[in-house]
Amino acid sequence: MTDLADRTGGPTPAPAPSVTAPAAPSSGHVTPVVDVAALGEQLLGRWADIRRQARTLAAHPELHKIEGMPHTEHRRRVFAQLQYLVENNAVHRAFPKSVGGEEDHGGNVAGFQELVIADPSLQIKAGVQWGLFGSAVMHLGTEEHHRKWLPGIMNLDIPGCFAMTETGHGSDVASISTTANYDADTEEFVIHTPFRAAWKDYIGNAAIDGTGAVVFAQLITKGVNHGVHAFYVDLRDPVTKDFLPGVGGEDDGVKGGLNGIDNGRLHFTHVRIPRTNLLNRYGNVDADGTYSSPIASPGRRFFTMLGTLVQGRVSLDGAAVTAAKMALTTAIRYATERRQFNASSATDEEVLLDYQRHQRRLFTRLATTYAAGFASEQLLEKFDDVFSGRTDTDEDRQDLETLAAALKPLSTWHALDTLQECREACGGAGFLIENRFGSLRADLDVYATFEGDNTVLLQLVAKRLLADYAKEFRTVNFGVLARYVVGQAAGVAIHRTGLRGVAQFVADTGQVQKAATAIKDEASQRALLTDRVQTMVAEAGTALRGVNKMPQQKGAALFNKHQDDLIEAARAHAELLQWEAFTEALGHVEDPGTRKVLTWLRDLFGLSLIEKNLSWYLMNGRLSMQRGRTVGDYINRLLVKIRPHAVDLVDAFGLGPEHLRAAVATGAEKTRQDEARDYYRTQRASGTAPVDEKILLARQARTAKPQAG
Amino acid sequence: MTDLADRTGGPTPAPAPSVTAPAAPSSGHVTPVVDVAALGEQLLGRWADIRRQARTLAAHPELHKIEGMPHTEHRRRVFAQLQYLVENNAVHRAFPKSVGGEEDHGGNVAGFQELVIADPSLQIKAGVQWGLFGSAVMHLGTEEHHRKWLPGIMNLDIPGCFAMTETGHGSDVASISTTANYDADTEEFVIHTPFRAAWKDYIGNAAIDGTGAVVFAQLITKGVNHGVHAFYVDLRDPVTKDFLPGVGGEDDGVKGGLNGIDNGRLHFTHVRIPRTNLLNRYGNVDADGTYSSPIASPGRRFFTMLGTLVQGRVSLDGAAVTAAKMALTTAIRYATERRQFNASSATDEEVLLDYQRHQRRLFTRLATTYAAGFASEQLLEKFDDVFSGRTDTDEDRQDLETLAAALKPLSTWHALDTLQECREACGGAGFLIENRFGSLRADLDVYATFEGDNTVLLQLVAKRLLADYAKEFRTVNFGVLARYVVGQAAGVAIHRTGLRGVAQFVADTGQVQKAATAIKDEASQRALLTDRVQTMVAEAGTALRGVNKMPQQKGAALFNKHQDDLIEAARAHAELLQWEAFTEALGHVEDPGTRKVLTWLRDLFGLSLIEKNLSWYLMNGRLSMQRGRTVGDYINRLLVKIRPHAVDLVDAFGLGPEHLRAAVATGAEKTRQDEARDYYRTQRASGTAPVDEKILLARQARTAKPQAG
Repeated sequence: MTDLADRTGGPTPAPAPSVTAPAAPSSGHVTPVVDVAALGEQLLGRWADIRRQARTLAAHPELHKIEGMPHTEHRRRVFAQLQYLVENNAVHRAFPKSVGGEEDHGGNVAGFQELVIADPSLQIKAGVQWGLFGSAVMHLGTEEHHRKWLPGIMNLDIPGCFAMTETGHGSDVASISTTANYDADTEEFVIHTPFRAAWKDYIGNAAIDGTGAVVFAQLITKGVNHGVHAFYVDLRDPVTKDFLPGVGGEDDGVKGGLNGIDNGRLHFTHVRIPRTNLLNRYGNVDADGTYSSPIASPGRRFFTMLGTLVQGRVSLDGAAVTAAKMALTTAIRYATERRQFNASSATDEEVLLDYQRHQRRLFTRLATTYAAGFASEQLLEKFDDVFSGRTDTDEDRQDLETLAAALKPLSTWHALDTLQECREACGGAGFLIENRFGSLRADLDVYATFEGDNTVLLQLVAKRLLADYAKEFRTVNFGVLARYVVGQAAGVAIHRTGLRGVAQFVADTGQVQKAATAIKDEASQRALLTDRVQTMVAEAGTALRGVNKMPQQKGAALFNKHQDDLIEAARAHAELLQWEAFTEALGHVEDPGTRKVLTWLRDLFGLSLIEKNLSWYLMNGRLSMQRGRTVGDYINRLLVKIRPHAVDLVDAFGLGPEHLRAAVATGAEKTRQDEARDYYRTQRASGTAPVDEKILLARQARTAKPQAG
Repeated sequence: MTDLADRTGGPTPAPAPSVTAPAAPSSGHVTPVVDVAALGEQLLGRWADIRRQARTLAAHPELHKIEGMPHTEHRRRVFAQLQYLVENNAVHRAFPKSVGGEEDHGGNVAGFQELVIADPSLQIKAGVQWGLFGSAVMHLGTEEHHRKWLPGIMNLDIPGCFAMTETGHGSDVASISTTANYDADTEEFVIHTPFRAAWKDYIGNAAIDGTGAVVFAQLITKGVNHGVHAFYVDLRDPVTKDFLPGVGGEDDGVKGGLNGIDNGRLHFTHVRIPRTNLLNRYGNVDADGTYSSPIASPGRRFFTMLGTLVQGRVSLDGAAVTAAKMALTTAIRYATERRQFNASSATDEEVLLDYQRHQRRLFTRLATTYAAGFASEQLLEKFDDVFSGRTDTDEDRQDLETLAAALKPLSTWHALDTLQECREACGGAGFLIENRFGSLRADLDVYATFEGDNTVLLQLVAKRLLADYAKEFRTVNFGVLARYVVGQAAGVAIHRTGLRGVAQFVADTGQVQKAATAIKDEASQRALLTDRVQTMVAEAGTALRGVNKMPQQKGAALFNKHQDDLIEAARAHAELLQWEAFTEALGHVEDPGTRKVLTWLRDLFGLSLIEKNLSWYLMNGRLSMQRGRTVGDYINRLLVKIRPHAVDLVDAFGLGPEHLRAAVATGAEKTRQDEARDYYRTQRASGTAPVDEKILLARQARTAKPQAG
């Protein structure tokens, strides 16, 4: 390749960008050894104790998924498990102290994230009950509502639904069609489903268990539609479990996964509820039908009410990282034991993990898991800062929403990709449910589209990046992007503050358009990754200039022409956030040996990103062709360096056999291999081994030859 | 982007390569319209009638998968379905005429490929019974064996196993450890499992149903091991279904999918079988223990015996394409009905399929499905040519093996990717099993690693490419590659003939190192794709020069350093084969309008491949930076052109509702949308619609303004 390369003539390499951060401490003479215990502690993060408690709980057999169980039975099991969580004080953390909670929002989510280890159905059913249904009453209701319903929700006397999504409106909450008409004569709201597309759909707890629900509907009083509000509605008789008059529904049936949850559909035919069942923190209706709200703007009010949804995204982000850790621990351990070929030969063969391809498959994903994990911890800290009220400005909330919208898509897709790659890396054994890959993959599949479709979320991030880049995009609310943005995902209000300071940076174009001379050091990686985000956003901003003043259809068409670019820009931004989180975490690693190994892993992450988008760096003159050609080789060298530390790096995840519960992660393969090798060794020693026909023929040929010659 | 682009200074565009094929017929004034019926007929291919029959059969409700059924019940159902296939004359085609078959190998596989429509478990269980167990008796046994066992196998009196794989040796058949020692005193073979790793594993029919088995074991007689041979062994009492003395096993339990099949493990403790139970077509043992074979070389004999395994790969390749067709038909139809946002607004919104990102997600995969489908048909024709004996030289068999090893990995991975993308593209509805994505994905998961692990197969292809490039690699049988190559996958004997004539092309380097000026025309696409394969192979060949003469460990290390490159070269080769198959198929399209649309689709496939590897084309001077920057735009323009024909292109797959059986592919969404729109239209007309608060505020603002001013 070198010969050809020299003739192609890329741009001359320029000096490294000057936007370098201080170099990491030199690790030249440090012995690369991972301090597993210390690294493990760092990975557990701010809520280490709660995570440990949750993992202890998740190790209880009562909470484990039983594979192959029919979905009807699995649902009953998971419902009983929720009760078990209640009894073990695992569900109260987020709730108000007034009802026995701790108002510990970060801790609550940290514990929740670990539940995926037991059974994702349990995790998500708990999320429906306490994270959505309970949270809606808590965040959208007022004190009377808390007193009335939270105790029953917390102790599971009231299993309930978060009835937002409709069949006809997945991501578009603003357009839901269920209505809540206020009747001043009786001081009641009338909840009504006008047509089939307005049925609530995919609602957890709806098919069987839910007796209560928070129903989202258009609040109409005195002839005015005040937009989407939340109403507390009784669904079923708590004893007979029959639907109450006017309420109906059906079972969503078997799903691709999470079959321990009874998702279903709900519809309402002129169901009357007391006026006071409106969860009225952000909007109230007086007895006479007069509407009032502490938030004057209907748009801002809507986004505020939906803002509590961010908790779901934060939760899924961390849960996805946990699942990836489980898969990699199992696959990497197995790969250090499995000798694929010829146990009967006298020589020691490499184990699977010594093969370059196997290293590439697993280590690149290990690096991404570390990056996603550090980013997830930062997101959770931000979440806790906001929800604790410590730093709870509009700007903080918006940053939180954007951060969650950026990270959740990447981590959930990464979990699916990792589970699949690990399953394939374990071959036929990977397909057996006893090793859990297929089970976890099926259950986590929907994480990519619920609590905000990943593709939609990335468009929200893109809109935020555009808004930071140019004032004109701040108010964009039409076109392709806007159509998504008004939706549920758009619980995210997107405004001013630039997460990575795009606008000021691109003004200084001199820094970014030079080809980097080196790709190995931290500063160069940062410059390359940052520059790409900034340039992509600036280009999209330029291309979309004036879109706001165009007729709606023309503007929408222009947006649509750049939809793919916008999504890619958002993805690049999210990847940069992960890289920054990893890099920041390196600064907190005290042990030099550990830092050395982790730095290789961070470099592997950064260079994998650069390799993935290499054509962009080349076409835009950010990397010379000569430099570009070194990326793959350097990645291969990092794989070799990381190889001796791979087991330490997964051991630091701190997942024991009670968490992994995978037959190939138990050392069974090593036992089998040792037994086979002993057998052949003994046979050879005894002289009873049969002669191989090939060897016999070779001997005969040697004997025959001199005679013939 | 254009501004920046001009400053980066890539190499000057050179004239187009001169290796152009004749231009396709001009389609300048042709109206692009798909003749769905004619295209559908072309897609059905040479065995159209058999495929139609199989689809009719697959539409029978008796054969359909019932979702959510416990695996024990599902197994019973699938066993009963096999009986249904027998009764409907769907299993005899491949077998000898002497036992009532038709000796129609291509037709047999064509029919088998369509069975995935009914239930993949049914397909694979049928594959185990007739494609593996029955085929082994047919191909490895002789006439007496045919008479004795084939009738019972065909009519399912003898459900049986293909007991090859062992726990310790997934892809490495040559190293299996089960032994068959000949005892001349009793004229029996003694089948024995020496240790746990030698248990047969993942064996279909082993857990419950199998009463017979073809067991692969090392044949040892007179102190010589003649290598792996196949033996017919009775497993269970046909009445009581109890294991016979010396036979044992266990259930593999629930799997990630295919739970209608009873996979399990088997072990043998000095089980004695008559000498004549050796399937002795390629190796015989006389009563006195003298071994003889029509094939003198043990290596060649082994590869010949395993050569019949290619049928499994050919079958899976086509089945994977069929599954991708199902997913795309459902997702594309739904995307033409689903309006994501705001049915209450007065204007007509775009449907999902009008969004650029949605088009990219689905149309690129549609293009790949067409390419994979045409390639699959060519593979099946090659298979039929060889197995019918029409063109059955060693060279033909080797070409067939290489072709199957190249195409099966790409099509099975493509099916998984497509099923997942389609599931996500349908959002929450995609996660419901009523739309089948999750079910099919789970069942097809293992297609990526069984009948030859995809990664291993690609390495076989790489070895063939290397061998074609340079004589020295023909005999390579050590190192990373060789360790895989001696395995099951290495049923593939890899030799001389170059599938794409690499060697002669690279000699003429003048043609390939110029930057292509255009990327849109067929000739340029071919030149770019071909050149990449050739260059990658040549580079690997150069890097590995002399590896054959190195000490084993050093040679293995050198191979390992290039393992990733070799696999990527094999993938590039397989993609080129798909592109060539698509292009060849264009030549058989008679209707100009159809050809025009299909040419866009072929271009989309070709350009997507070029985009994916754009950095390679840039770094190696095959595309200028200016040209490189046009690839994405051109792809986006193709998406727009293909959009009006998307439904026609999936309709041509010919899959009816009885095959798709997906709730969102029935038009239900359109009905719901129409109902919702009618509701709002009526409401607006009646004047009873509530006023939106936002509009009210805007009105008030307008009224207030003049007063204030």
